[in-house]
Amino acid sequence: MIVYFNGQFQELNEVKISPFDRGFLYADGVYEVIRTYYGKLFKYADHLERFKASLDAIKINYAETDLLEQNIYKLFELNKYTNPNISFYIQITRGVSFPRKHPFPSADVKPTVFISASTIENDEHAINKGIKAILEEDTRWTRCNIKSVSLLPAVLANQHAVEEGAEEAIMIRDGLLMEGSHTNFWGIKNGEVWTAPLSNLILPGITRTVILEICSYIGIRVNEQAIDKNDINNFDEFFISGTTTEVKPVTQIGADVIGSGVPGEITCRIYDAYLKYVESRNWF
Amino acid sequence: MIVYFNGQFQELNEVKISPFDRGFLYADGVYEVIRTYYGKLFKYADHLERFKASLDAIKINYAETDLLEQNIYKLFELNKYTNPNISFYIQITRGVSFPRKHPFPSADVKPTVFISASTIENDEHAINKGIKAILEEDTRWTRCNIKSVSLLPAVLANQHAVEEGAEEAIMIRDGLLMEGSHTNFWGIKNGEVWTAPLSNLILPGITRTVILEICSYIGIRVNEQAIDKNDINNFDEFFISGTTTEVKPVTQIGADVIGSGVPGEITCRIYDAYLKYVESRNWF
Repeated sequence: MIVYFNGQFQELNEVKISPFDRGFLYADGVYEVIRTYYGKLFKYADHLERFKASLDAIKINYAETDLLEQNIYKLFELNKYTNPNISFYIQITRGVSFPRKHPFPSADVKPTVFISASTIENDEHAINKGIKAILEEDTRWTRCNIKSVSLLPAVLANQHAVEEGAEEAIMIRDGLLMEGSHTNFWGIKNGEVWTAPLSNLILPGITRTVILEICSYIGIRVNEQAIDKNDINNFDEFFISGTTTEVKPVTQIGADVIGSGVPGEITCRIYDAYLKYVESRNWF
Repeated sequence: MIVYFNGQFQELNEVKISPFDRGFLYADGVYEVIRTYYGKLFKYADHLERFKASLDAIKINYAETDLLEQNIYKLFELNKYTNPNISFYIQITRGVSFPRKHPFPSADVKPTVFISASTIENDEHAINKGIKAILEEDTRWTRCNIKSVSLLPAVLANQHAVEEGAEEAIMIRDGLLMEGSHTNFWGIKNGEVWTAPLSNLILPGITRTVILEICSYIGIRVNEQAIDKNDINNFDEFFISGTTTEVKPVTQIGADVIGSGVPGEITCRIYDAYLKYVESRNWF
């Protein structure tokens, strides 16, 4: 498997991250996950804009963001993928600096850039049957809008979900359902879609924006308002969204089966419209 | 410089961390900093206990913690340090796993273990003159008692301090001064010492415990109670503590000079008692 590392395309096992990389010592870095459909990057401009916002938010000065797209496509080529659905993982850290100390290193320390690619295997079962999620207290920091690699709280929450036979943990902060550990979260009540508003407490999902557009297009009203945990029982459907997740129905939360335990009607309408949008290739 | 990496003692530039190390991708790891005095590890048992607690808290199963001490001393030897004041940095992550996904990898994935050593240069100036600190909203997660490498919020806070001409940022949560970005925080009012109580919101500092013992020994009353930001002006002295920081007077917080701007009397008594304790070698 060939990856991109600091200007070089090389075999994964040749890549040498220094233990003094600030990504390793301090989680001092940000990332993006971008996918293709039909061999083309989906919503690349939006991902790039978010990535730049993350870099700016933590003041990593990386001047070569304009080269990322060509390096991603080059990686696609070099790995000779035949599957047209590939996800790319891009991480930029504040670089290597010795000795270890908290403040930023001097301005001449170059950021570390890593890009890898992997095939997306769609989980048809989850789409047709739905997944189980759990509710988890949101222990994360208060800058969840930054897509940083400081992800330990998300890892622990997601692992807890897996241990409970679930696939995703929905993070609750101050009684409100904010988002999943690595997805955005949605509910449907009386035919209307609810999702937490953009703030410093959730990731501004690219798929979230696509879904908002789709709902507007197919005439489903959206309330950008977080769902109260005490109001869960009044909701008819739930789903999660994300770049590789797309739209996944949530048919069970903790011990509670949602509705009749199958993907909800409006969720399916949104998912179908999402697929049509992708198929339309209007985003090319 | 020789470091320890996964069972090997090797030159730092030979160490190859995989980009798929969960420490790099997810900040999925914990660390310790342990120092020597007179060539002996200070409070090793306490550091080891805390390290084990951190590993347990994030469920990293590392069976060889009993070997850490000998590997640390071996590193001391191999680097031929003549300075008897060395700090050791030990990091254990959940290991290397491909493809990238949030849940823990299978149980046969071995944790990554990295240890490095560096000389401690004491900052006599700060001890005699005191340092400046700033106040910073605590954006961190709510498990600050775990010494994890998910440190981006602490990095950003500390960098902000440096940009303000200060050395440390004191984290304020719900109006209370919890701790520094990488130190514990203390205040003195009417001859009594205050510091935040142990909880999930601060690190249980090893030096913090030593200082509590010292205060008890020299007859200074301690309130384990966090200082309210509105009560700062009623305090006479402040200091920070940590393994390499030891006891450092804080003589300015933001724009406010504390007292007459020189290290406070009780801070100096505590620092002197700390040095005597170290010199006594009673902790050998």
